[in-house]
Amino acid sequence: MSEKPIVLYTTPTPNGLQASVALEEIKAAYDNKLDYDVVRIDIGKNTQKEPWFIQINPNGRIPAIQDRSRNNFAVFETAAISLYLAQHYDKEYKLWFNPVTEPDDYSEMLQWIFFAHGGVGPMQGQANHFNRYAPEDIPYGKKRYLEETKRLYNVLEIRLAERDWLAGPGRGKFSLADIKTAPWVNIHAFAGIDSLDAWPAVKAWLARFNERPAVKKGLQVGKESK
Amino acid sequence: MSEKPIVLYTTPTPNGLQASVALEEIKAAYDNKLDYDVVRIDIGKNTQKEPWFIQINPNGRIPAIQDRSRNNFAVFETAAISLYLAQHYDKEYKLWFNPVTEPDDYSEMLQWIFFAHGGVGPMQGQANHFNRYAPEDIPYGKKRYLEETKRLYNVLEIRLAERDWLAGPGRGKFSLADIKTAPWVNIHAFAGIDSLDAWPAVKAWLARFNERPAVKKGLQVGKESK
Repeated sequence: MSEKPIVLYTTPTPNGLQASVALEEIKAAYDNKLDYDVVRIDIGKNTQKEPWFIQINPNGRIPAIQDRSRNNFAVFETAAISLYLAQHYDKEYKLWFNPVTEPDDYSEMLQWIFFAHGGVGPMQGQANHFNRYAPEDIPYGKKRYLEETKRLYNVLEIRLAERDWLAGPGRGKFSLADIKTAPWVNIHAFAGIDSLDAWPAVKAWLARFNERPAVKKGLQVGKESK
Repeated sequence: MSEKPIVLYTTPTPNGLQASVALEEIKAAYDNKLDYDVVRIDIGKNTQKEPWFIQINPNGRIPAIQDRSRNNFAVFETAAISLYLAQHYDKEYKLWFNPVTEPDDYSEMLQWIFFAHGGVGPMQGQANHFNRYAPEDIPYGKKRYLEETKRLYNVLEIRLAERDWLAGPGRGKFSLADIKTAPWVNIHAFAGIDSLDAWPAVKAWLARFNERPAVKKGLQVGKESK
């Protein structure tokens, strides 16, 4: 019987991967003290709409977590999951900022998390839909969301032009804001963006993200059967 | 020369109104100790894309705030604004939850904030667009986002069936989660939802929200010239 504290319900989409990368980064930062089990959710079979899962996430979406060490407390929404994990399992603020002693860095991290959560994620998701999944060819929809995704990348480009990571003093510190955003930018091709060459700072940031050992592990979670 | 601590850059859209309602609620909760000036942004003239505003919000959207009492610190993204205001100006947790002593209520509030920030807001926004603003009639787009908005209201209905507010113990406590969500639900008709009768718990919750004196004041901000 496993007694790892966290159960992660996921599948390797950009949203699912945010949770697994956050878990792997915290795990690595604390010498494997935080560990987790993966329950792969088959979104092709709509497992995430089954009553048992709706009890965990009323929105019927992946990812979600439960914390065995805290009375099976359930958390849904990617960014709420990473902030929960940070609060309870990253008490030295290795991947976020202390709200009390670093309030401005903390707020800037939240600002970029919400920018990605309400902008990059949903808009690039719509670009994916019209580009690849819609049963009709709708040029207006394709163009609308492709252009909005590019506009959002322009905003990231300005932010990253003189820094390594989205939040934090100086050139920034790797944080939950990067974990929130990069898994979406990784699949830019699905949305119809063939290359990141127009956004060199974003491209360099994404390369930095992807070469982190814990990120590499997190991006594989859910891909093979476990 | 005014020395109110906060400057709010806004216009009375569902996003702008979240910020003005949060400000009015905090102002009322602390006997007017927090006050703010309003700079109305004319989104019809794309004022929010002008260089001076991009310095405040690189995403070129309303609302944004600056805090004169904290070195003109700037905050963008609705939910980041309300969390910032709460941290600095609601130290008795009247409109949110103490992350340290009420961690589960705090997390649930964040979960519903992110649900609205990544779901209700962007999806209802797309429903508005295809229903009212798109230059072409695109039935697929209308249907897609109307149905998703209804699905999200179904999730809210389940959550609110046995509670008064989205987060908090028992029947809940009025919080930033309600302020995040209700201004969107208020304009359901724009998205093509003529009535909330199919969602009685949501309808009752919205009525409770709208009858709060500070909410009434906040919903007027930016509507008349100031």
